[in-house]
Formats: sequence, C-alpha cells, structure tokens
Amino acid sequence: MSDARKIIIDTDPGQDDAAAIMLAFGSPEEIDVLGITAVAGNVPLSLTARNARIICELCNRTDVKVFAGAERPVARALVTAEHVHGKTGLDGPELSEPTMELQEQHAVDFIIETLLSEAPGTVTLCTLGPLTNIALALTKAPEIAPRVRELVMMGGGFFEGGNITPAAEFNIYVDPEAAEIVFRSGIPIVMMPLDVTHRVLTRKARVEKIRAIGSPAATAMAEMLEFFERFDIEKYGTDGGPLHDPTVIAYLLRPELFTGRDCNVEIETTSALTMGMTVVDWWQVTGRKHNARVMRHIDDEGFFELLTDRLARI
Amino acid sequence: MSDARKIIIDTDPGQDDAAAIMLAFGSPEEIDVLGITAVAGNVPLSLTARNARIICELCNRTDVKVFAGAERPVARALVTAEHVHGKTGLDGPELSEPTMELQEQHAVDFIIETLLSEAPGTVTLCTLGPLTNIALALTKAPEIAPRVRELVMMGGGFFEGGNITPAAEFNIYVDPEAAEIVFRSGIPIVMMPLDVTHRVLTRKARVEKIRAIGSPAATAMAEMLEFFERFDIEKYGTDGGPLHDPTVIAYLLRPELFTGRDCNVEIETTSALTMGMTVVDWWQVTGRKHNARVMRHIDDEGFFELLTDRLARI
Amino acid sequence: MSDARKIIIDTDPGQDDAAAIMLAFGSPEEIDVLGITAVAGNVPLSLTARNARIICELCNRTDVKVFAGAERPVARALVTAEHVHGKTGLDGPELSEPTMELQEQHAVDFIIETLLSEAPGTVTLCTLGPLTNIALALTKAPEIAPRVRELVMMGGGFFEGGNITPAAEFNIYVDPEAAEIVFRSGIPIVMMPLDVTHRVLTRKARVEKIRAIGSPAATAMAEMLEFFERFDIEKYGTDGGPLHDPTVIAYLLRPELFTGRDCNVEIETTSALTMGMTVVDWWQVTGRKHNARVMRHIDDEGFFELLTDRLARI
Amino acid sequence: MSDARKIIIDTDPGQDDAAAIMLAFGSPEEIDVLGITAVAGNVPLSLTARNARIICELCNRTDVKVFAGAERPVARALVTAEHVHGKTGLDGPELSEPTMELQEQHAVDFIIETLLSEAPGTVTLCTLGPLTNIALALTKAPEIAPRVRELVMMGGGFFEGGNITPAAEFNIYVDPEAAEIVFRSGIPIVMMPLDVTHRVLTRKARVEKIRAIGSPAATAMAEMLEFFERFDIEKYGTDGGPLHDPTVIAYLLRPELFTGRDCNVEIETTSALTMGMTVVDWWQVTGRKHNARVMRHIDDEGFFELLTDRLARI
Repeated sequence: MSDARKIIIDTDPGQDDAAAIMLAFGSPEEIDVLGITAVAGNVPLSLTARNARIICELCNRTDVKVFAGAERPVARALVTAEHVHGKTGLDGPELSEPTMELQEQHAVDFIIETLLSEAPGTVTLCTLGPLTNIALALTKAPEIAPRVRELVMMGGGFFEGGNITPAAEFNIYVDPEAAEIVFRSGIPIVMMPLDVTHRVLTRKARVEKIRAIGSPAATAMAEMLEFFERFDIEKYGTDGGPLHDPTVIAYLLRPELFTGRDCNVEIETTSALTMGMTVVDWWQVTGRKHNARVMRHIDDEGFFELLTDRLARI
Repeated sequence: MSDARKIIIDTDPGQDDAAAIMLAFGSPEEIDVLGITAVAGNVPLSLTARNARIICELCNRTDVKVFAGAERPVARALVTAEHVHGKTGLDGPELSEPTMELQEQHAVDFIIETLLSEAPGTVTLCTLGPLTNIALALTKAPEIAPRVRELVMMGGGFFEGGNITPAAEFNIYVDPEAAEIVFRSGIPIVMMPLDVTHRVLTRKARVEKIRAIGSPAATAMAEMLEFFERFDIEKYGTDGGPLHDPTVIAYLLRPELFTGRDCNVEIETTSALTMGMTVVDWWQVTGRKHNARVMRHIDDEGFFELLTDRLARI
Repeated sequence: MSDARKIIIDTDPGQDDAAAIMLAFGSPEEIDVLGITAVAGNVPLSLTARNARIICELCNRTDVKVFAGAERPVARALVTAEHVHGKTGLDGPELSEPTMELQEQHAVDFIIETLLSEAPGTVTLCTLGPLTNIALALTKAPEIAPRVRELVMMGGGFFEGGNITPAAEFNIYVDPEAAEIVFRSGIPIVMMPLDVTHRVLTRKARVEKIRAIGSPAATAMAEMLEFFERFDIEKYGTDGGPLHDPTVIAYLLRPELFTGRDCNVEIETTSALTMGMTVVDWWQVTGRKHNARVMRHIDDEGFFELLTDRLARI
Repeated sequence: MSDARKIIIDTDPGQDDAAAIMLAFGSPEEIDVLGITAVAGNVPLSLTARNARIICELCNRTDVKVFAGAERPVARALVTAEHVHGKTGLDGPELSEPTMELQEQHAVDFIIETLLSEAPGTVTLCTLGPLTNIALALTKAPEIAPRVRELVMMGGGFFEGGNITPAAEFNIYVDPEAAEIVFRSGIPIVMMPLDVTHRVLTRKARVEKIRAIGSPAATAMAEMLEFFERFDIEKYGTDGGPLHDPTVIAYLLRPELFTGRDCNVEIETTSALTMGMTVVDWWQVTGRKHNARVMRHIDDEGFFELLTDRLARI
C-alpha cells in the first residue's frame, strides 16, 4: 500500500457518502484511507458516526478507524436532510447496528494529529458533508493548513443553482462559516459542485449493473440508491437521482474524467435569502484571488464504469 | 392603430435598447408606443434621454414623446456601464445630436398619469433598464399597480449567473430596491433574464442581414451591434454578443418564441457579495408565492428573423 | 411675516406632531409655515393627512396648505404605531372630521416646486416622521438638495437605544432607505434623537399649565398628551412621556436650549437585528465624514416654558 | 481552599486582564483558579500566552497552569488592539520574559476536560477577551454547557455604545460568531459591558493607592495602569481610563457592588456597520427570551477599595 494516496474521509453518511467510501475501499492500491471522520449533516452525528461504521462492516473493513466529530455547525443550529436520506441516513436496505467501536479520540484531534504526524503535503482531505470538522481543526491548529496536500470536496453549486434553497447547496448551507474558513485557508481546493453531480444520474440500467455484482456491499448499495434517487426523480423529473459524493473519490482515481477552472469562490454568510451560496467567479469579473479549482463537467459514463468496476473489487 | 397594444418603454439606451425600440417602431400594427421614459443606467440620464431621442429621429418617429426620469437609483449611488456601451451609450455609428425636444413632464409623472387615464389593464410597461422610474411611480401612486396589464422586463439571471458581478445582472444590480418594489407590486411580470438573452447572439451573418436592409436605421443598428458585441466576445469567446433588450418587445409580438415557468423571484438587497441577484425558485423548493413568469429558452433563429423583418419595415 | 423663517413641516401626526405644529403656529413672527406635507408613519397616510388638517382647524389656520405624500416607505412595507398613538393617531380629545380640503398636488411635488421657486438656502425642512417624502423628492429632483437651508429632524437615538426595537427609533426604522438617502444628500442636518426627546417629559404639572391656557387648541393638546404619555409611563416608569417632535420647532426658535456635536451618522439598512439604527460616531473613531449635528442635551424646563408660552398665543 | 469558588480565567492580557488575574490571586479563600487559558485578542496568542505567565510569576503563582488556545477567531481574521495596550499587551513596567512553562494541552481541551471532570455546576468561566476558546469548546463538546455554573464576561456595551466602533465593544467585535455561540448556549451569563466598566476610572489617587502597596505586583500594576489609561484619557477627556476586566472577578467576590437586569442579548453578526454589537433588550420590547444578566451600574468606590485591598494581600 506504500504508493497509495493517503486520505481522510470526512463524511455525514448518507447513501451517496456510502458510495464514495465504497469507491475508496474498492481501490486499495491507489487509496489509503487513514481514517473516517463523521460530522453532523444529512442526519445527526450519532447516526453519521453509526452509518460510517456500518459501511466499513459491509465492506469488511473493520480495520478502518472511525471518529466522531462536531455535533453541530460552527456558528449555527444544525439543519438535517431526512427528507432526502430517510430517517437513518442510509434508508433503503436492511442494515444491522454496527459492532465495531467508535474511536475515543475526537475527529478534530485525529485530523490535526494525522496532519502533524504524516509528512507535509502527503495527506488529502476528502469532504462529503458540511465542513465543520475541518474548520474546527483549522481554527484549533492553524499550522495544519500548509501541510494538507489537497482538499477535494463535494459542495456548492453555481450555474445549476442550489438544492436546499434556490441559491445554496446543502453541505455549504449547513455550515457556511466553516466553508468560509476552508476557502480562506490557502489549502488547494477541488470543488465538486451540483454543476457536476447533477450530471451523474443513477439511471435504472446503472443501478442494475451495481446490483448484478452480487456482493453484500453492492446489493446494499443498489438498494440505497433506489431509496435515495426517489427524491430527486420527483423533484427534477429525471431518470435517476444525482450521485454527489463519489465524484470526490473518482477525482483522485481518474482526474481526467473532470474538467473545470481555477476561480475565486466566496461563501455567502450574511443574507438569509442567499445564505450558503458559493459565488463562483467563473468569468473572472471580480479580480479576486483564485482559491479553488471548480469542476463543471464530468464524463458520467466513465464515472459509472469506474464506480461499478471498483465496487466489484470489494 | 386601434388594435395595437399600448406600451410605455422605460429605457437606458444602450445599443440593445435601441434595437428594442426599433423593433417596436417596426411593428406599428401590433404595438402603440405611448411614450419613452429614460432612466439612468448604462450611461447617465442626460445621455439616455438624449439617446432615446436620437433613436426616434433615426426612425423618423419624432412624434413619440420622450421623458426624462430618475437620475439615480432609489437608495444607492448610480453605477454605469460605459465599459460595455462606450462613452455615449450608443457608440458605434456616427450620430448627430437630436433636435426633437424632451418633454417637460417628469417620466414618473407621465407613467402615473398614463396609467390613470388609459383604461385599466390596457397599458404594458416594457422595461429595458434599472427599474427606478417604475418603483418611484409605484411609491408615489400605489393605485397604478392594479391598472398595469403586464410588465415585461429585461433583467436578472439565474442559471446563467450574472454579468456585472458573478451573481447579479446589471439592470437589477444598479437598483435592487427598485426591483424589489416591482417584484412585490402584484403586477403580472414577465422576466427576460440572461438565461434567455445569452442565447441571442449577434453572429456575423445576422448582423450582415440587418446591414443589408440598407436604411439609415438598419445601418446604424448594424454599426451599433458591432461595437456592442466586442465586450462579450472577448469575455465569453462567443461568435457575437448577447442582444438583451429586444427580447422584451419580441415577446409582445411572438410570445411563442419563448418558454418559461411561473416562479417566485426574490431580490437580494442586503449582501454585498450577492447584491442584486434575482433568486429564482425554479424548482419550487421554497413555498414562496409566484410573482413572475421567468423565461429560460428562446428560439433564437425565429427571434432574429422577426427582428430583421421588422427593422426592414421602419 | 417677511423676517420669519420659511419651513415645510413633513409629518405623520401623531399627538407630538400636533404639539410641534402648534408650536410653529404659535410663533408667526419667527416661523412661516409654507405647507404641511403628510406621510405614512404613526398611522396610515389617510389618517395623517386628515390629522394635519384637524390641527390646522383647531388653530384656525385653514389658510395653511396640507398635502398628502407617500403611502408607504421607499423600499419596505409600512409599519405603524397605533399601540402608542391610538387608532386615529390623535386619540385623546374628541375631534371632528376636518372640513378644509387637502391639496390636489402630491406632497413630493410641492416640496420640489417650493425648493425650486423659493430663493436658494431659504427653506428649512422640518421632519417629524419617516423620511419617505423627502427621499422621494431627492430622488426625483436631486437638484433641490443644495437649495435646502437646513433639515431638522426628529429621529434616531444612540446612547438611549431605540424605541420600536432595542436599537432603532420608529421614524428611521419605518423607512431606513429614505433615511439613508437624506443622510447622504449633503443637506445640513440637525438631528433630535431619543437621547434628547426622552429628557422632555410631559409631567403632570407641565400638562396642567398647558390645559390652564383654556383655548380649544391648548385643551385638546392637554388631552392628547394625557393619552399619548400612558404608553411610555407604563414602559419606562417615568412621570410623563417623552414629547419628541416639538423639539424640532423649538430648535428653530431657541437653538441655545440644545447642545450637541457634529458627527458622522450612518443608517443600518441590512441587518434585521439592528435595522434602522442610527449609528452615531460621537467619539469620532471611524474617520467618516460629518453629515449631521446630533443633539444630546436639552434644557427641558426652558423647552416647556417656550411651548406653553407659544401655545397661549394661538 | 475547599470553599473557594472554582474558576477558569480565559484571557488576552492586556493590562486590565492583569488586574483581574491579580484580583483573583489576592483572594485565595474565595477563588480557586483552576487554570488560565490564553486567547488571541488584545495582542496575538503568543503574547497573551506569555503575558499570562508573566502575571503568574509577578504574583509568585507559578503553580497555576497556563494554556494556549485559539490563535484567531472562529470565522474571521484576527483584529488586535496594540493602539490601546502597547506592542506587548502589558506595556508600562519593565517585565522579564517568563520562565514558567506553557502547558502542552490546548486550552480548549483543558476547558472541556475540567468541566467534564469537576462536579457539574461547580466551575465558573471568567472571560476577559474574545470568546473564541469557549465557543470552540462548546462546539467540540456541547455536553459541557449544562455543567458550567456561570459565565461572567467582560464584553459588550449598549447605552454606552461601543469602543472599537461606534456600536461594538472590542471583545465581542473580534469574534462575534463565538459570542453568538456563547449567548445561545444556555449557560447562565453575567455580562459586564462598557456601561459598567466606563464608570470604573483609574483616577490618579486610586492608582497611587495601588502603588503605595509597594509590592512588585502592585508596583507593576500601577505602571501598567498609567500606560493603559493614556488612550482613553485622550479619547474621552476623563481623569483616568476605564478598568474593564477586574469587574468580572469583583462580581464573584462582592456581587452587591453591581446592579443589572435579566435581558435578552443578541449579537450582530451580519452587518459591517454594526458588526459585533450586543443588542440588549433592556426595556423588554422584543419578547425574546432572557439569556443574560446585564449589569449597568457599579459602586466604583467600593470596587477600588476591594481591588486595592486584595492587591495588598498578594
């Protein structure tokens, strides 16, 4: 595993978070998951910390350490999304309670400690939920920022608008102050916004290919996707729902599936109407400094090939 | 002219405003221009009031009354756009100073008086610039609101983002408080946002067809468009620039060229980052009341046929 | 009357507005009331326009022209204060409907016309309510600003806090955008904030001196004050309520009753929490330009002597 | 020491922070300092962590543990106040570098661990600077909130206005999001605003009484106060400057020196103009829930007697 890229997955599972974690687990030569840090988001922390362990167990990866982090955003009350993910966050398949233990250490301290103990520039942060844990780590220990290799996030949206409000995507909306801290940190950021993830639809044929793998993980994944997609199918009238989070891991494995642009991104933190919006200066009209690579297009066929292939390896 | 639709054109010419006014002048059986009211926007009021008269004279329509309105927005300092329109607002052709007189009456009073004297529900407001004049009329005489047949505006943008800032389109950005007054007025609104107008490109062949008409008005229009498009060609790398304002008049003539949706639209008036954004609830996630028909698609070939045909009739 | 100071009273009566108007009417050698312009505020416009005429009739001043202005603020819905002033705005005495006519001209146009027709620097604006009419006049005809001699307003509050919210005084809260327009206009402003007016209490003995005058106007005034003060007595536990608006007229008559300081004043127009606050840089910490003389202390005994004396002359 | 009240002092020394810490050290029968946690504020963290140790050494209290906390606010860049406190934060006396060691544990973790290990309801938090450390502890471990006995803070201002801006006091302005977290935490809060601390002036005679004690700590304190007061003497023209932070410790020792009221307090976090303002609903006009006891008056003579007496015991 010595050449594999070291990552921490910060996550609020979430069916699509599960798909992202499985995509990482299916790629052991390329990706070394140093730990999974749970955060409150799609569902409360007690559930996301539970769900992360369920996914590890489904994939026989009880060796992976799972840490619980922030129960609520940096400066606001928590908003959750059970209307999308169901009551548990992993609604769809029947799942048993996890038996593997949660780590005692706080997720924020694990992130800090790992970044300080691993060689500088070797650890990538993959964020699939609100950025609370990362922001708290950066506030508590600002010296970690220059040691991060890259932060690849699912979050935001611009030309596609938002999902939780007309202007804001859920992960950023839940904790806009955390997002602002991250975007100002100087860490190299790659952003997978709704502009990309709404192109990645769980069409029936694609889900069936996953189900056909036949493993417990793949079967559970197929059942999760069927539950998860119902919300967006009803809202957008599309064939299948968008599969947001695995784009983050796919980018590590095959960056050539994506195209985007270096931009300035600012986070709206003051107006109720546009709260949590990621204002992307795509056309470079503001003169503000570039602070993120914003992806806009994806080869969705290539993405699903990759996902199916790696799920089959678990 | 008895069956023609009665309109007031509120405008800040601007080359594309000129195209809109000419499109109206070229359609006398269908459109009766009761007056043209100038507002500060693309360039200061003294120039927009001048430019409106130049366009009338170019089209031999010195019978049309031109009124000067607000010199600056309702609650802010004026921002102009000479970087797009040139110093005069009509840069491109050589144009002489107008000889027809400006009306003495203030534009705001003309709008109020016309709406109170014409039969209720018969007058359409066509707005091509910041909404200052309309907002002042509504504040001074709120009883006019239910008498307006429809307000068709060029303004805003959503899935296309903004143009003056990443999030805001120029007309709304210049006077967001005025826009808010208009969107809360209860007047039936049709909105032509950048989502539509960025699909209407002044490609070379299209401009040549206009020039080929050979009349002074058409020749001046072709020269204006050549000047006007240079800004967006450089910014977006497209073949031609977007021709925003004539979509408003085109909608009166051939509404079937456009498709859109009834939505709630709110105006951002508090945050510097997103100031003047038109937040369109296209996916109906907020439960807020519909207050505008927001257009999103246009048959741009059909539009240019209409424009060329009508310019030829002047 | 040739040496008298020419003023326009812009007002939303209101019992304390009535006291201000009577104070002006009782001082004909010093003050020439060119007109009274009504605005929506304490109660809706139809009532303030009615109440202004009732006060004129009570004082036998049916020669004074009364104009109706804005029905609602520049960029917001109207908020009124019947909980303070009663349902009619002049609750307390029994009053008959006025018989004198309202002028046909809009208040905004009267203000503009007067400032353009009188000699520059000779007309003082006395504002006792929200600044909507003045802001609309400034927006419609910006050329009037340098012609105003002085604008003396009742409005705002700083070290005393607000009254309608913890941070905001009613007149500014109702139309913060109008206030912002006025404070940026360059007009010399004298501000009578709650810091002053809360020192001017309608103590029992003071009201009795007014009642003892015995005229219909004075008797009605005493009855109004008894009604008006009940709200603040209950809220602040003081002996009598603050008599806000007459301080404006008292300043014209005897400026030496007041002390204050030239400051920068900014208006909060974005935050719901502090909306309409007048942020006074009393200690000169911001380096922002002075735009108002902010009064902070009053000789309240001298004030009540003046008021009683002048009411007796009506 | 068994009956002494257990406190953690969270501080950004600062000369007046030093006075507060000394007041606690001079009262060992009544106050048990469990630890001192430094935060960035008046000067950067490296200096506040240094200064806290200098004060311990000046008082021969090298047994007290000092922890370094947050280098910067929760969601903003750090603002400091060297213009008040001098370059080191303790300008005035000549002071040597401290020799006692900083604890390795992060201040945030010390606060959490202490609150979880001591009996519920026994530990009081005394905050003398921005609330960053407390907010981070509350976000990382929300379960500590109901275990806090009381949080007594120097911060905010209302009827007195602000000091760093017209509307905001420095401690809250530096980290308004942290303040918002604390005010929403449900912890019983006692607030010492500028309304109190501006009544506590370091008049010459008072400083001389402290100097006359003759101990190294008292002598250094007298020299610090002379440096510190120069800023406010120049700004406000008073005899002496306000001694903010020791009011927090004085309240623990002699609460009867203070009077105040239970109120709702909200923190302004959105508007640049009023950022960091503590909006105190003193007159109970909002119906919002009480979340703090806001002090407004102090017996300043009694306070200086207490301070001088206790400094003499060190």
